[in-house]
Amino acid sequence: MNKTKDRLIYLPLGGAGEIGMNAYVYGYGPAGRERLIVVDLGVTFGDMDGSPGIDLIMADMDWLAQNQSRIEAIFITHGHEDHVGALGHLWPRLRAPVHARPFTAALARMKLEDAGQPVDALRIAAPRPAVIEAGPFRVQFVPVSHSIPESAALIIDTPAGRVVHTGDFKLDGTPVVGEPFDAEAWFTIAKEAGGVHALVCDSTNVFSPRPGRSEATLAAPLAALIAAEKGMVVATTFASNVARLKTLASAAKQAGREVCLLGRAMNRTVLAAEETGVLTGFPGTIQPEEAVEVPRGKLMLIVTGSQGERRAASASLARGKYLGLELREGDAFLFSSKIIPGNERGVIRIMNQLSEAGVRVIDDHDGLYHVSGHANRPDLEAVHDLLAPKILIPMHGEHRHLSEHARIATAKGLAAEIAVNGTMIDLTGDAPQVVERIETGRTYLDGAVLIGAMDGVVRDRIRMALNGVVFVTLIIDEDGQPLGDAWVETMGLPETGKRGENLADTIEADLNDLLGRAGAKVLASDDKLEEQLRKTVRDVAMDEAGKKPEVIVVTSRLSDG
Amino acid sequence: MNKTKDRLIYLPLGGAGEIGMNAYVYGYGPAGRERLIVVDLGVTFGDMDGSPGIDLIMADMDWLAQNQSRIEAIFITHGHEDHVGALGHLWPRLRAPVHARPFTAALARMKLEDAGQPVDALRIAAPRPAVIEAGPFRVQFVPVSHSIPESAALIIDTPAGRVVHTGDFKLDGTPVVGEPFDAEAWFTIAKEAGGVHALVCDSTNVFSPRPGRSEATLAAPLAALIAAEKGMVVATTFASNVARLKTLASAAKQAGREVCLLGRAMNRTVLAAEETGVLTGFPGTIQPEEAVEVPRGKLMLIVTGSQGERRAASASLARGKYLGLELREGDAFLFSSKIIPGNERGVIRIMNQLSEAGVRVIDDHDGLYHVSGHANRPDLEAVHDLLAPKILIPMHGEHRHLSEHARIATAKGLAAEIAVNGTMIDLTGDAPQVVERIETGRTYLDGAVLIGAMDGVVRDRIRMALNGVVFVTLIIDEDGQPLGDAWVETMGLPETGKRGENLADTIEADLNDLLGRAGAKVLASDDKLEEQLRKTVRDVAMDEAGKKPEVIVVTSRLSDG
Repeated sequence: MNKTKDRLIYLPLGGAGEIGMNAYVYGYGPAGRERLIVVDLGVTFGDMDGSPGIDLIMADMDWLAQNQSRIEAIFITHGHEDHVGALGHLWPRLRAPVHARPFTAALARMKLEDAGQPVDALRIAAPRPAVIEAGPFRVQFVPVSHSIPESAALIIDTPAGRVVHTGDFKLDGTPVVGEPFDAEAWFTIAKEAGGVHALVCDSTNVFSPRPGRSEATLAAPLAALIAAEKGMVVATTFASNVARLKTLASAAKQAGREVCLLGRAMNRTVLAAEETGVLTGFPGTIQPEEAVEVPRGKLMLIVTGSQGERRAASASLARGKYLGLELREGDAFLFSSKIIPGNERGVIRIMNQLSEAGVRVIDDHDGLYHVSGHANRPDLEAVHDLLAPKILIPMHGEHRHLSEHARIATAKGLAAEIAVNGTMIDLTGDAPQVVERIETGRTYLDGAVLIGAMDGVVRDRIRMALNGVVFVTLIIDEDGQPLGDAWVETMGLPETGKRGENLADTIEADLNDLLGRAGAKVLASDDKLEEQLRKTVRDVAMDEAGKKPEVIVVTSRLSDG
Repeated sequence: MNKTKDRLIYLPLGGAGEIGMNAYVYGYGPAGRERLIVVDLGVTFGDMDGSPGIDLIMADMDWLAQNQSRIEAIFITHGHEDHVGALGHLWPRLRAPVHARPFTAALARMKLEDAGQPVDALRIAAPRPAVIEAGPFRVQFVPVSHSIPESAALIIDTPAGRVVHTGDFKLDGTPVVGEPFDAEAWFTIAKEAGGVHALVCDSTNVFSPRPGRSEATLAAPLAALIAAEKGMVVATTFASNVARLKTLASAAKQAGREVCLLGRAMNRTVLAAEETGVLTGFPGTIQPEEAVEVPRGKLMLIVTGSQGERRAASASLARGKYLGLELREGDAFLFSSKIIPGNERGVIRIMNQLSEAGVRVIDDHDGLYHVSGHANRPDLEAVHDLLAPKILIPMHGEHRHLSEHARIATAKGLAAEIAVNGTMIDLTGDAPQVVERIETGRTYLDGAVLIGAMDGVVRDRIRMALNGVVFVTLIIDEDGQPLGDAWVETMGLPETGKRGENLADTIEADLNDLLGRAGAKVLASDDKLEEQLRKTVRDVAMDEAGKKPEVIVVTSRLSDG
C-alpha cells in the first residue's frame, strides 16, 4: 500500500451482517489518515435468547473514538430507531456535527435530549441540490420513499468519484406522505459527476421476488375493512409510519369514527411530523379520556406495539383495560404490519389474548393491509440498472441478504463485495478491495450503563437463567478451622432433588463432609477451598437435579477481621 | 346436576389453547365418577423467553393422578413428540395400559425406556375394525394421513354416542408412506352407530385458506432440485417425517448420490419404521465415516435440526466440521420444512452461518419443497360435511385457532364450544355444556427433576437474567454488632456503575453506612436487617446501574455457632 496515495474507504460498523444498529463510515485521504464521515447511528433491541436484560444494542465505537479527530461529520438518513436510536448514547464519543433533514433532526434532537446530551451539534439539512461540505466529501441528501417521512439517500462526492449510499428505500410513486420516487432526478444523478462509482445499497428485501407495492394501494382495502366493522376498531403499525397512520385515520374518519392515538412514540412522531411540516391534513384526534365516551362503533384506536412489545399499547389493551379503554367481543384488531423475524412469540401472545376476549384479529392478509418500506428484488435490479455503478456493496442485511445481493450484482457484471461489520473496503479503483479487518463488537445499554457485549455480564445472566445459582458462605475461625457449617442458598433451582430431599440441605451435608476431610493446606487457601467447594456443589447438583449451577463462594476469615 | 345420570365428558389438559403437549381426557359415567380414558401424552419445548433452562414442558397431571383409579386406558394417536413425548415422565402417575399401533408403540417404548419405566403396560393396537374395550368405551384406531406414518384418528363409541377424535391429520390420497385418506371408510363411520355425535378436531391449519397438497407432489420438484446441484446437498426436515425422508433419499439415488442420515432421532425413527414394517423400499444409506470418502457431487446428507435446534446436526454442520463432514462454497442446504413460529431466530442463525461458508440456502419456496401435515380450512370443512356431527369441539390449536374453527362450525349450524385446557365439557346432549373448570398448569422437566410451572424456579431465573443478582454476607458477633464490613458479590451486573466506580464497592459502602446507623433492634432481627440491606442494595443499584437486582442476604451470627 502506497501511504502517500489518497484512497476512498468504506467501513460498516453495524448493519452489515445483521438487520439493525446501522453505522457506516466513509473515509478519504492517505491510508490510515483518511478524513471520516459517519452515516447513521442506530440501535437493535435485545432479546431473552441472546441479551437478557439489555435495553438497547449499538455498534462498538472504539475504532471511531480512537480516530475521533478525523471525524468531519455525522449524517442521519432517516428517523428510524435502527438509524438514529443510538445517537444520544454514542455522540459523546464522536462529538461531530450531525446533519439531518428537519423531521429526522426533530427525532434526533429527542434522542440527544433523552440521553442528556447537548443538541447544538445538530444541523438541519436541505435536500439536493444543497451540498454539505465535510472535509474532502461533498454530500447531498436525496429524498427517497420509505416507511417514515423524509428518508434520504446520500450522494457522497469524493475526489475518487461518486458514491450513492441508498439508506433504506423503496420505489414508490405515491407514498401518501413524503416525496415520491423521482426517476428523473436519479437519472440525472447517474449521469452527472462522471457517473456513479459505487452504490452502497439496502438489501433487506432481496429475497422478495415481486415488485414492491405503493403505500397508496392500502387506502381502499383499509377503508373497506374499517367501514364494515360494527364494534371498536384498533389498528397497530410502526409509530414512525406516518403515511400509514394517515391512511388509517382517514379511513376511520370516512367511516364516521373518531380517532385516538395511543402510545408515547406515536404521539411524539405525529407531533414532530406536523411541526416540521412533513405531515399535513392529518384528521383531528381525540384523547383517551374522550375516547371512553364515544360509542364503540364510532371509535378507532391507532396504537403502538405492532411487534408485540410488552409495554406498548397493543400488549396493554390485550391484557385488559388500558387508560379506561377495553376490547370486547365484536371489536376488531388489525395488525397493519408484518412480524419482524424473532418477534413472533410476542405478537402471537397478543393475538391469543385478543381471541380470548372475543376480538376478531386481522393480520396483513398477504399484504392487503400492509406494504413493506424496502425495495424488493426487481426494484433493486431496476436501481442497479438506472444508476449503473462500477461497484456494488450490499448493506442493511444479514449475511444471507448481502450474499444474495452480491450474487445478483455479480451476475450483471458489477464488481461486488460482501463487507460485514468491521470490513474496511478500498473503493478507489474499479473493483473493491478488502484492506483491513477492524475489531468490532456490540455495545449494550444495560439499565443506565453502557457495557461491552463481551464483558461477561450477559454471559453470566444466561448461565444463571439456564442453570440456577448456588451461593455458599463459610466462616473460618482464628485457628483456620471452619466455624460451624457451610451455609447454602439456592436461586433458580428446584427446592427438592430427585430423591425427594431438600436440595440446599443435601448440598450442605456434602460440603460439610468435605470440610471435615479437608486438610489445613486447603483450609488456608481461599482459592483451593473455593475450587473444592464449587466442584462439590456442581457434582451434587448434577446428581440430584441434573443441573450444573453457577456457584459463588464467600469465605470469611475471622483472623482477617 | 342429577348425580345418578350417566354423562359423557371431554376435558383437555394440554393442547387446547396452545400447539403442543397434547393430553385429552374423555369420561363416561355418573358425574364425578366417570370412568376415564386419556388420549396422548405429549411435550412442548421450552424457550428462553418463558422457560429458561427447562428441558420439556408437559401437561399437569394432578387431576388425573387424583383420579388414577378411574383411568381405564391411555391411547396414543401417533408418534410425534407433542403426542407421546411425555409418556415416560408421566406414566408413573397414571399406571394404565397404553394402546398404540406398532410403529407408534415402538416410539412409545423408547420414551418409557429412556425414562427408566417398565414397558409392560404397552399394548399393540390393530386398526379398525379391531375394537379396544376400555370400561364403557369402545375405541377404534382409524388410519389417517399426517407427517409421520401410522397416525390414527380414534372412534370412541360410548352409550351417549360416537365421538371422533381426529388426532393430527390431513387429507392425502398419496402420502408416499402410510395409509391414504379413505373417504369411503369415513363415509361408513359417519353412517353407522347412529352417526357421529361429536367431532373433536385438529385446528392447526384453520387459517390456511387453500386445500392442502399431497406429500407426493414434492417428489418431482425435489428430484429436479437435487439433480441440478453440483456440490454436496444437505436436506433437513423433521426426523419423524419418514415419507419426506424417503422422497429425499429416492431423489438423491436417482441423481446418483449416496445417502447418509445424520442425527440420532432420524436414525432411530427410520429403524423403528423399517422394523415395524411401515417403511419399505427405503434406499440403502451409508455411515458418516464412509460419507467423508464420497465425492461431494455424489453425496446427499439428510439431517436433523430443521427448527434450528442448537445441538442437532444442522446447527453442528453450520458451525463447522461435524463427524468429519464440512460444508463449502458450491454446496446446497435445503430446508424441506417450515419454521414453527418462535423458532425463527435459531433457523435464521443457521442460514447466515451457511451463507458465510458460501453455501446456497434453499427454503420451502412457498411450498415447492414442503407440505404441511395438517388439514387446511377447506379440508376441515370437507370433514365437517362428511362426518356431519351434532357437536364440534376444536382442539390442537392456540386460542385463535380454536376460536376460528368454532366460528366456522357455528356458521354451518353445528353446536361448537371453545374448550381450552382445564375446561370440562358435558357432551351428552345435543349441545356441549361447560360443567367445570379444572385447575391445570404445566409440569416442567428441569434437568432430572419434575417441577411445577408456578413453583417460582423459572420466575427466579427470568428475574436473574433480566436484573442480575447481588449476594450480601454479614457476620454479627456475640454482642449483636457487625463483625467487620458487609461483603458484596454481584453476578450478571456491570462491574462499573454510571459514575465510573466499582458497583460492588459502592453497594458495600452504602451497606456499611446503614449498619453503622442501625439500632440494636434491627441488628437483632434477621428479617428486619435483611429487609433494610435488600432495600439499600436495590436503591444503590438503581442509582448506579439503572437496575433492581435480585438480592440474597446471608447473616451469620457467631452467638448461634
